[in-house]
Amino acid sequence: MITPRLLKGFRDYLPESMIQKKEILKNFENIFENYGFSPIDTPALEYSEILLGKVGGETEKQIYRFSDHGKRDVSLRFDLTVPLARFVSLHFDNLTFPFKCYHIGPVWRGENTQKGRFREFYQCDFDILGTTSLDSDLEILLIIKSGLLKLNPGEFRININNRKILNSLLNKMDLNEKSIDILRSIDKIHKIGFDNVLKDLIENLHINKDIAEKVMDSLNIKNSNSKILGEISDYKKIYHTLNNLKVILGKDYSHFIDETENIFFTFEKLGIEKYFSFNPAITRGLDYYTGIVFESFILDQLDYGSICSGGRYDNLTGLYSKNIFPGVGGSFGLDRILDLMENKNILDIKTSNTEILIANLDITNNYNYHLLAEKLRSNNINTEIYFDKKKINTQFKFAEKKSINFILFAGEDEFKEDKYNLKNIKTGEEMKAITIDEIIKIIQNKKKEEIKQ
Amino acid sequence: MITPRLLKGFRDYLPESMIQKKEILKNFENIFENYGFSPIDTPALEYSEILLGKVGGETEKQIYRFSDHGKRDVSLRFDLTVPLARFVSLHFDNLTFPFKCYHIGPVWRGENTQKGRFREFYQCDFDILGTTSLDSDLEILLIIKSGLLKLNPGEFRININNRKILNSLLNKMDLNEKSIDILRSIDKIHKIGFDNVLKDLIENLHINKDIAEKVMDSLNIKNSNSKILGEISDYKKIYHTLNNLKVILGKDYSHFIDETENIFFTFEKLGIEKYFSFNPAITRGLDYYTGIVFESFILDQLDYGSICSGGRYDNLTGLYSKNIFPGVGGSFGLDRILDLMENKNILDIKTSNTEILIANLDITNNYNYHLLAEKLRSNNINTEIYFDKKKINTQFKFAEKKSINFILFAGEDEFKEDKYNLKNIKTGEEMKAITIDEIIKIIQNKKKEEIKQ
Repeated sequence: MITPRLLKGFRDYLPESMIQKKEILKNFENIFENYGFSPIDTPALEYSEILLGKVGGETEKQIYRFSDHGKRDVSLRFDLTVPLARFVSLHFDNLTFPFKCYHIGPVWRGENTQKGRFREFYQCDFDILGTTSLDSDLEILLIIKSGLLKLNPGEFRININNRKILNSLLNKMDLNEKSIDILRSIDKIHKIGFDNVLKDLIENLHINKDIAEKVMDSLNIKNSNSKILGEISDYKKIYHTLNNLKVILGKDYSHFIDETENIFFTFEKLGIEKYFSFNPAITRGLDYYTGIVFESFILDQLDYGSICSGGRYDNLTGLYSKNIFPGVGGSFGLDRILDLMENKNILDIKTSNTEILIANLDITNNYNYHLLAEKLRSNNINTEIYFDKKKINTQFKFAEKKSINFILFAGEDEFKEDKYNLKNIKTGEEMKAITIDEIIKIIQNKKKEEIKQ
Repeated sequence: MITPRLLKGFRDYLPESMIQKKEILKNFENIFENYGFSPIDTPALEYSEILLGKVGGETEKQIYRFSDHGKRDVSLRFDLTVPLARFVSLHFDNLTFPFKCYHIGPVWRGENTQKGRFREFYQCDFDILGTTSLDSDLEILLIIKSGLLKLNPGEFRININNRKILNSLLNKMDLNEKSIDILRSIDKIHKIGFDNVLKDLIENLHINKDIAEKVMDSLNIKNSNSKILGEISDYKKIYHTLNNLKVILGKDYSHFIDETENIFFTFEKLGIEKYFSFNPAITRGLDYYTGIVFESFILDQLDYGSICSGGRYDNLTGLYSKNIFPGVGGSFGLDRILDLMENKNILDIKTSNTEILIANLDITNNYNYHLLAEKLRSNNINTEIYFDKKKINTQFKFAEKKSINFILFAGEDEFKEDKYNLKNIKTGEEMKAITIDEIIKIIQNKKKEEIKQ
């Protein structure tokens, strides 16, 4: 006998979790289509060369990489952004630009497991390629807002930064060479705190103390009142910080600071400012981001880290094609969101979507049960037959465990009369000798009531 | 630069294919829930020991198997049935039996590619565990019928057999030792024909000519008129063949022949007999089947092979648990069905589900476009903004390519008046100076009309 077990960092979905996961996915898909995005998909396995093109850092070590039957060096995808860049480079002749797409599927990373993190997890990506328009950045942010309002996992805040701000600041201070290391260090402020970032810059990256302090001061992230370190959610303070940065960086950089300002200004005009904040400490670890970057937090669940992140990546397709398609996109961490909502106990748990169970009363011709069931199903009523001739009590318990509302009883007499008995398990109400059409109406009316509520 | 390319046997889904794939998936999910099945999911990667437990044959050679970061021997799942057996053995304490579940996801096999076959493909499995009731076999068959009627890929026939028939026949003729090889040989009748199977039995499996002929004769598959070799779709002939077998096999085996008869009898009572036939040549290659087995064909697309197969596997969970849960289930080959329907040109092709495009007319405050768009979206209208200030002709072409029906025009004057211009691209109809609420009504009415059609 082989012991049934799972690999560390992997999980099964039992019906009660999978029903919820599918419900969340359906919400995301509706939101994406509501914003005009079309679905795409790419393979789980690709040539390693393609997936590793511009990764670096911790991620490379985490990739599941092996040699296939044809001795090809292949890897499981670790995100959906790199495959998207490859996809657009391969198919651009058959796509309509600006290309707006969403992509939902599992990715694999052999990282150490922690709260809400798995080695196999679903990403829900949404991207716009082929435009550098500020409106495309804005739309990506609006989708996150709409998605989180729809799911309602709790009060949230979407933290926004523009990588160009930090890059310009580092350029201005002649720190270009160390810029990706500095960005990664500052990115840790949420985990290790302001003082430790400063220490890291000085001791490990060997940056002059005065310069390190000047970088950190310019970002105005020391004295934030927010629980999320470095976050500024007061819009007056956002504009003030941006103006300061404009002075420090000079005219050459004013363009993208104006754009960042414009984003927050639009949120105010749309009356949705409370969902967004400026966070100059956010840089995202990956190499490929070039402009706006963002992370999203549930305020009473900061342990989970960001549940939707992304940014602008204007050069990524340049890896695979002479035609460069600038892009911007975000990604919802579906499994993390599901885990978070399960932990907060805010999901409506059910183990099936079945509406009616036909009890098995040991009749001679079982096809009669199938005839009844097929009639109910063709009226869009989710219907089960109890398969085994067991005690009624056992059949009742089965219905309760599967969150089924109605039980239909039909023995030889009922089939003769073509009238049946129905019981509503939740209310206890019993209806005797009614026709199948009456039963259909009762269940359909109950559905209508539930939709209204 | 890295050449963008795919691994052999793998495919991308562009929006027009992915919209169709999702449509087919939605139909399957609705059917599964209509029959009271709940969704589950398992990981793509598992311990090789678990996945290889009872496979054998060609399949084992096709598995993607490697060593992970922790030196574990892991494999990508090659089907969804083995993971299900492991799942039920691991979680049985938290499941309600009879356990009815569906499981949709990709599986991987490094097999040689042929028409409609990929190395990564989606399976849509539906299974019932914890009962040996004939009604559960019947329900699995009813689901296939309902699924194929809903999708409508063409006239179809579900071919049914019971592995016990062949096994008993071989037992009776003292061919037990070679039984799995004989089953696999007979299973090829659809590909290589009656005469070649007989030759294979005699020459390669060294079976006495008389006995080999007797086996083949008992199955009554030589003179079938059907295009699918070995299939019997005339119900009189089905009952006749079954009765002959009862005589050949004797009383000890009459029970499961009665059951097989009962299945066809129920189809007649339900008035769905034309979708089913008896095919004593079907055995399915895999070791784990123990009772009913079936395959489904689209009659004008036999090249594609079976698009929905499965059977009863009563001992499979015994590999992982002392508690044995008998099971029966089927699996739709989603990618094969999609490929077949694309080739038959019977899909309604569109590249997005967007309903309205807001043209970009170079206004000063772009947030006005976002305000309009958010209003439309909150009324469940799928809405895009054109991001770049390009010629109207370019924007029109964009809308046409994305299958968008309406364009909304709003410049400075329109925003001042809060009245806008709408154009129906398909009819050419233009509506000038109407309110956003009127626009919402027009689009909602059009949707209602389309649903009615």
